[in-house]
Amino acid sequence: MKITGTFLDEISHNIPHQNWGEKEWDRDFQAMKTAGIDTVIMIRCGHKRFITFPSQCLIQRRGCFEPPVDLVDMFLRLSDKYDMKFFCGLYDNGCYSKPWQMGALIEELDDVKTVAEELWGNYGHHKSFQGWYLNREISISKENPESLPEIIEHTQKLGSFVKDISGNLPTMISPYISGVKKGSPDNVTSLEEHARIWEDILAAFEGAVDILAFQDGQCDYDELPEYLALNKEIADRHRMTSWTNCESFDRDMPIRVLPIKWEKMRLKLEAAARVGIEKAITFEFSHFMSPYSMYQSAHGLFDRYMEYISEQ
Amino acid sequence: MKITGTFLDEISHNIPHQNWGEKEWDRDFQAMKTAGIDTVIMIRCGHKRFITFPSQCLIQRRGCFEPPVDLVDMFLRLSDKYDMKFFCGLYDNGCYSKPWQMGALIEELDDVKTVAEELWGNYGHHKSFQGWYLNREISISKENPESLPEIIEHTQKLGSFVKDISGNLPTMISPYISGVKKGSPDNVTSLEEHARIWEDILAAFEGAVDILAFQDGQCDYDELPEYLALNKEIADRHRMTSWTNCESFDRDMPIRVLPIKWEKMRLKLEAAARVGIEKAITFEFSHFMSPYSMYQSAHGLFDRYMEYISEQ
Amino acid sequence: MKITGTFLDEISHNIPHQNWGEKEWDRDFQAMKTAGIDTVIMIRCGHKRFITFPSQCLIQRRGCFEPPVDLVDMFLRLSDKYDMKFFCGLYDNGCYSKPWQMGALIEELDDVKTVAEELWGNYGHHKSFQGWYLNREISISKENPESLPEIIEHTQKLGSFVKDISGNLPTMISPYISGVKKGSPDNVTSLEEHARIWEDILAAFEGAVDILAFQDGQCDYDELPEYLALNKEIADRHRMTSWTNCESFDRDMPIRVLPIKWEKMRLKLEAAARVGIEKAITFEFSHFMSPYSMYQSAHGLFDRYMEYISEQ
Repeated sequence: MKITGTFLDEISHNIPHQNWGEKEWDRDFQAMKTAGIDTVIMIRCGHKRFITFPSQCLIQRRGCFEPPVDLVDMFLRLSDKYDMKFFCGLYDNGCYSKPWQMGALIEELDDVKTVAEELWGNYGHHKSFQGWYLNREISISKENPESLPEIIEHTQKLGSFVKDISGNLPTMISPYISGVKKGSPDNVTSLEEHARIWEDILAAFEGAVDILAFQDGQCDYDELPEYLALNKEIADRHRMTSWTNCESFDRDMPIRVLPIKWEKMRLKLEAAARVGIEKAITFEFSHFMSPYSMYQSAHGLFDRYMEYISEQ
Repeated sequence: MKITGTFLDEISHNIPHQNWGEKEWDRDFQAMKTAGIDTVIMIRCGHKRFITFPSQCLIQRRGCFEPPVDLVDMFLRLSDKYDMKFFCGLYDNGCYSKPWQMGALIEELDDVKTVAEELWGNYGHHKSFQGWYLNREISISKENPESLPEIIEHTQKLGSFVKDISGNLPTMISPYISGVKKGSPDNVTSLEEHARIWEDILAAFEGAVDILAFQDGQCDYDELPEYLALNKEIADRHRMTSWTNCESFDRDMPIRVLPIKWEKMRLKLEAAARVGIEKAITFEFSHFMSPYSMYQSAHGLFDRYMEYISEQ
Repeated sequence: MKITGTFLDEISHNIPHQNWGEKEWDRDFQAMKTAGIDTVIMIRCGHKRFITFPSQCLIQRRGCFEPPVDLVDMFLRLSDKYDMKFFCGLYDNGCYSKPWQMGALIEELDDVKTVAEELWGNYGHHKSFQGWYLNREISISKENPESLPEIIEHTQKLGSFVKDISGNLPTMISPYISGVKKGSPDNVTSLEEHARIWEDILAAFEGAVDILAFQDGQCDYDELPEYLALNKEIADRHRMTSWTNCESFDRDMPIRVLPIKWEKMRLKLEAAARVGIEKAITFEFSHFMSPYSMYQSAHGLFDRYMEYISEQ
């Protein structure tokens, strides 16, 4: 199972910035191409007051800062150049933090739709503009059960909307398992709860969400095969395509976060292959797997991964 | 607005050490010079038992460890060589931690004065020895209101003393706003509280403190312009020079701490320029902005910054 | 006092992985040799489900994952090549976490013995296989006093066993002082408590443990000389050899963990030399002292250390 897609973590809320200019990004896209990556997913187009392109909506209505560089334009030009598919993430106002403000997501829906229209209007002509990333990371954590219907409604409405304006481009989500590596033990859900609740969520998403790419790092390594199989089964039932978001950072270390040990990544990739997942993407190449990453252990991960795929 | 000064973070209490020898420091001073830096500020001359020069006072009275290298001597020779101004930080016994020991700062004042005399006696002949840094980082946090008068008295007395012994060399402080990025929400002060209390503090500092260089990273980015304008106004009223301490590390990330994203630094520099701040310094070049930093994203920050100033 | 031994931190539970292949490890062994290292200690042969060699016992009885590379084989070949002594660490099921499961260590003893037999059977013919590392890090923290007898029994039995099967190869432990840098103030033991309890522990270990290599980073720098002298005295009384585990990472920083400042390491080495400690090892060369480490400040530490030993 090869990794053929990666997130682009701009604007980040928890991964320190590499301070790359276009020359460095071009070099990194070239490395992605060498590694077999054909899809890049911009994780969001804005977070709180920082934005990736000069959105008039976000600058005027939400006081966002005029960005020094139009990253969306740059990423699309590089995607065109290296013949990749670009999935476009949307706006995140940062309101997911506790205490949950009920209604906040629905209130922001109008703005997010306007931003999607701006994105499609400005950049839809690029041949690489091939999909949307619905960037709310959904989980069924027991912490905020009352917020779940709102998140579902938000993603469902947004998915339908962006498909409508873009000639039905595919939409992707990347939720996470409410597993042992996420927060307190009280929030961990059982496999049965996961199955039951996600059955309902994916039923609600039919027609709005095309690709399901669960994050693979929230449960323990020995639990992953069961979750992968189950997620694939529910996705199949609701006619969604199954990808795996094979995280390339290590969740088991006190430094949050550095590149993962290759052995762990290999284990997760092979588990995904065994249940017939169609494509593996990663969060994310440029920090955690790139030969140009600021973290030198990413260079090692790149070398180990390239050896591995050359032996397949 | 260009960055023309930097702290030298020796002895550090929270930034991991780069293990540089004189060759590496010389190379770094050369990079500072290239970037337009004309002022270096040694953040302190000792912290707890670790010291930057073989102070007899600190070794005998406080059991400090004999240092393997005389860093003060080295920094002054390099400052002479690269035609920079050196501001000398003083001793910090580490007693600021909770629970606050009332009187501890005043008790240590005699020792700190003796250390200042040693510094001036040993190194005052260097042409680059051009100022003092009064290194207690003052804040008006609501956590320890009863400790504030003591810190003010300490800094006021120390400022007057070092000016007296050194022919009135300028003194600098770099306090911080008690803002949303500092500790618990209970400690955050309003703009009004900040204005009122800092008015009193700067009144007390007249004649003892010449330069006010507030840290710019404790409040949110959209609040910074108001704080910069207010601080400049109070400083003007009390005949102090206004600098900004434009932090080059990122306070928004779980890894504490790595280089800041260039976009954020640019935003802060331009906000300072708009209110007429006279000079920007940073904490600090060698870890967070240097092409030789152990953190590779600092190399990117250096490149982005150099592009930026070449376009001005 | 030179550092002539290092741990090899495979499998790690808290130090991010460098993703090295055999080429990178060979290069690092060469650097160790240059620095005067003659002993390498593999910290453990397995941790939870991750293992360093294809142990049938661990794969079948404990569901461990088949490893992609046989690291024990590789480390022994490199140790043979560079004429080093290899100490072999044992299995750690990760059960030391709270709440303490009484009996868990004794229950796993059978499996750990079987793993030791596998190790000796597979690799005992290597000329570099020269000792065992009993990898439970014992402390007398007040947190779990009732667990101490169990840990002692476990290490004592395991030490006797591996000596028996291997023609009396030496065994080493590396416990830690329950000092100010370890957990809450409630757990800190006094020098007197340390002396009394460790007297009893080492008495129990006679015949099972040959080498005592206390970690040197859990107490404050000014307390270390007394602890080193005391530990040497107790070890002498029980006919054990005294080494010091001179930690090369910095325990004083918010980033957990990066290379230590050279000044601190020098201080600790010289304190050990003064009380007649026979050998210094470190945790560990490859991340924190190597010119090839992913952390650039390790390159500086290597340079400072090499300058230091060339001046002795």
